[in-house]
Amino acid sequence: MSDKEGVSISVSVAEDREMIGEVTRRTGVFDETECKTVFELFDTFIKDPAYGYFFLSAYWNGALAGYACFGPTALTEGAFDFYWLSTDPSVQRKGIGQALCLAVMEEARKRNGRLIVIWTSSTPGYEPATKLYVKLGYEPSGRIRDFYKPGDDLLVFVKYL
Amino acid sequence: MSDKEGVSISVSVAEDREMIGEVTRRTGVFDETECKTVFELFDTFIKDPAYGYFFLSAYWNGALAGYACFGPTALTEGAFDFYWLSTDPSVQRKGIGQALCLAVMEEARKRNGRLIVIWTSSTPGYEPATKLYVKLGYEPSGRIRDFYKPGDDLLVFVKYL
Repeated sequence: MSDKEGVSISVSVAEDREMIGEVTRRTGVFDETECKTVFELFDTFIKDPAYGYFFLSAYWNGALAGYACFGPTALTEGAFDFYWLSTDPSVQRKGIGQALCLAVMEEARKRNGRLIVIWTSSTPGYEPATKLYVKLGYEPSGRIRDFYKPGDDLLVFVKYL
Repeated sequence: MSDKEGVSISVSVAEDREMIGEVTRRTGVFDETECKTVFELFDTFIKDPAYGYFFLSAYWNGALAGYACFGPTALTEGAFDFYWLSTDPSVQRKGIGQALCLAVMEEARKRNGRLIVIWTSSTPGYEPATKLYVKLGYEPSGRIRDFYKPGDDLLVFVKYL
């Protein structure tokens, strides 16, 4: 689907499941409930790709090194939610996150997407991703103080396609 | 649960289904897909009240005149989504919307809610509700231009409890 400095991106397949869980854990950012949620979204995608969750896998030297999950936002015409982005900490700074983000934009455009919305956390673990979104032209569009828990705000970023 | 100038609020029951659909249609604000979504949320609530959607009905002179739907936000500690608020246009300006909003706050507090978030539309049909949220202390916390469709923005309002 796209190639950038040794990164290859393709639609996720059932065999990616274990490594998607492993990469999610390795980020050190997501708690157990969140890791479970990733599996729930992934299993829904594998069982019924039309349901509304879509997964892309990034491979580095043939091994899964990251993934993205996105899908159309219910009750909108052309808005997409960018649900999840994880990259393996051992292969970071290789452009994997950026390649995934660009692939998500490309896929959303193909599906008549007009905009992509990211709902994310203000805590330090999310900062590398947040910086990447801004670099790729996502605009800060909202902030909800203490949304996830006290001290953990929701940040909203929007990219018009 | 609460009484205000002839309005009584209580947890919705299966028998409210038809009138909830009727009130939704009567508002003239929601399209067919949105009306269907209300039924989906309501049926989920009736079948499994612990699932995460909670309905309150407002009665005026014994007849259903409005309802609210809210529930805990996934992956947060104490955030609540206020999904839906409809009041029958023939019994508006009777404090029904306000009584429903106050009951939602009360119910969210009982469930250790720290904040309530409303995601709504910028189009004129939603203006009476939006004015009510601001009157009740909801703070504008974000805006996503053209979110629902071109010309129809998402507005975010937050009330800390």
